[in-house]
Amino acid sequence: MDKDKSTSRPGIVDKRVKRNIKELRAYSVSQIDCSIKLDGNESPFQLPPEIREILGEELIGIDIHRYPDPESRELREKIARAGGVPTDGVLLGNGSDELIGMLVETCTGLTGRVLYPTPTFSMYGLTAIAMGAEVIEVPLDQDFDIDIVSTIDSIQVSDPDIIFLASPNNPTGNTYSEDKIKSIIETAEGIVVVDEAYSDFSGYTFMPYLQKNENLVILRTLSKVGFAGLRLGMLYAHPDLVQELNKVRYPYNINSLSQAAAELVLENHEFVSENIQLIIRERDRVFGELKPLNGIELFSSDANFILFRVGEAERVFSELVDRDILIRNFNKPGRLENCMRVTIGTPEENNAFISALGDILSS
Amino acid sequence: MDKDKSTSRPGIVDKRVKRNIKELRAYSVSQIDCSIKLDGNESPFQLPPEIREILGEELIGIDIHRYPDPESRELREKIARAGGVPTDGVLLGNGSDELIGMLVETCTGLTGRVLYPTPTFSMYGLTAIAMGAEVIEVPLDQDFDIDIVSTIDSIQVSDPDIIFLASPNNPTGNTYSEDKIKSIIETAEGIVVVDEAYSDFSGYTFMPYLQKNENLVILRTLSKVGFAGLRLGMLYAHPDLVQELNKVRYPYNINSLSQAAAELVLENHEFVSENIQLIIRERDRVFGELKPLNGIELFSSDANFILFRVGEAERVFSELVDRDILIRNFNKPGRLENCMRVTIGTPEENNAFISALGDILSS
Repeated sequence: MDKDKSTSRPGIVDKRVKRNIKELRAYSVSQIDCSIKLDGNESPFQLPPEIREILGEELIGIDIHRYPDPESRELREKIARAGGVPTDGVLLGNGSDELIGMLVETCTGLTGRVLYPTPTFSMYGLTAIAMGAEVIEVPLDQDFDIDIVSTIDSIQVSDPDIIFLASPNNPTGNTYSEDKIKSIIETAEGIVVVDEAYSDFSGYTFMPYLQKNENLVILRTLSKVGFAGLRLGMLYAHPDLVQELNKVRYPYNINSLSQAAAELVLENHEFVSENIQLIIRERDRVFGELKPLNGIELFSSDANFILFRVGEAERVFSELVDRDILIRNFNKPGRLENCMRVTIGTPEENNAFISALGDILSS
Repeated sequence: MDKDKSTSRPGIVDKRVKRNIKELRAYSVSQIDCSIKLDGNESPFQLPPEIREILGEELIGIDIHRYPDPESRELREKIARAGGVPTDGVLLGNGSDELIGMLVETCTGLTGRVLYPTPTFSMYGLTAIAMGAEVIEVPLDQDFDIDIVSTIDSIQVSDPDIIFLASPNNPTGNTYSEDKIKSIIETAEGIVVVDEAYSDFSGYTFMPYLQKNENLVILRTLSKVGFAGLRLGMLYAHPDLVQELNKVRYPYNINSLSQAAAELVLENHEFVSENIQLIIRERDRVFGELKPLNGIELFSSDANFILFRVGEAERVFSELVDRDILIRNFNKPGRLENCMRVTIGTPEENNAFISALGDILSS
């Protein structure tokens, strides 16, 4: 991806491609290969061999010459039951990315505005711009928490159709204050999307608020807890809203293999929960071991990654790559200047990272 | 799907959901279960046991805790090589549905109009309306071929950003005249999408025209030749256009399991080609055997299905269901009144259908 805008274009692109898209830069994914991969907020744990065996059997048994269940009914029922919500209050996406797209496509009908605090997950802005919505960004406060005064003020002035709140937030790692999210849900007349992609690592969820708040939408995903390859995002909302979103869903958006694999995961959730606990413990250990290093500013995290600031991010990043360790570099002028994000890996990977970073910072 | 618009809605849906989406009816998929399933234009053939075995091994080996390759690079390279086009002229979608969506989202930048002949695949219209484009439908002629005078006229008046031509067309089954498609490609100033979802069964393709026509886009799919469960649509176009479309693609839209399975299919294409030949022979045999039946009007087909008209479609449909045979009923006032579409199945399934239809029509 990472397109260069300077290539020559034929007339057809110039004339027919929407201006907002011509001006857009695609979501960028690093293509650097390192054996220690701590850049993508994936789980470091492979599927246990016994589950892998069962999964293989299941997948071999699928009739892939047939279309998937267009409604993913069995999978949605299992997800609904696990979440304590009605099945018609659950919508599945080919990753949360697709659900974010469906929300923007469907729900920007009054003001056409999408609001989110920054810095945050870049897909909210990219998707909104691609779909022609107007983007309103409100800076987070000094602690990367919601700046409630300016946010409420901005909501009242701009009346956004959709507000995206990632909590825990990516890439900052912190959970927003519960009271602030609550007051936004109560103040906003549009839809408030709480993106809980990382909430398995915080233990906190807004799911109990769904029933009383028909403007609340919750997003979750299997990507951070061991199943990034499946592409399964989950949306929870009022059934009337789900019904409208479902109209723009591509009929067979969740393929047969992912449906079967995700069902198996939900039936065998124990190892997933254990891995989550292990990642939480490792996160806290890594935080503790990074803290005494010289020249590092750490931001506390409720997610499966840690954001930190160093003196010279570019040097640190490339020296880590030299040591075969890939993390994510967010360095650019502004709030994330010299900031980098490391995903929590296996204990061995984390040790390699801590030791490498210690070396680099002291050299 | 098939939503009823009369449910009570909370204010949030009324106020924030776009009007075009509130008024939309979702794509409808039949949920009737019959043991002989000839309604979905799927291949009737399972994966051969030896390929199934290899696929199982491959899928077990995938690290599903990692994100898929965001660029599907290896798969795209194989597809490009097979199609004789450059890799950066290939874009993959989670089914052609997603590619149709990306085209409408990206390329309706000048007039905002989408044109297609009717009757045709319903997703062109549904997607265009969902995305707020203006839809222009031009009726096909008496032979379900393009009515070239009215189509060219309509193109010149409305200057559509995108024209969708499904050839072979669904649900009519015929290939449009090559000269007519060519003259549309030459006349239109916007993008002409030739959707070749069924071209494996016609043996004809516009792929050779790609290089000289930068406004030509070709869509193909694995869904009709044995892999509907994978959801893999393929778009071929000028690399500059692919680059723009790629900006609205969700970064990981093709999941790891489907990428691996599709690569395996491309490496073992022999059984796919054999199945295609078998379906073509069966299609011609079924056509020949249906022809002498009383009270049937048959439309000749270059696809893996046959459209036909009977006296009372509703009765025929439900009596087929009573005999455990599901086909697709297109009956509604207009061009497809009393028309139904049967997918070519295995020889045994086709025999069961021919015999049941003969009984029903003579009773």
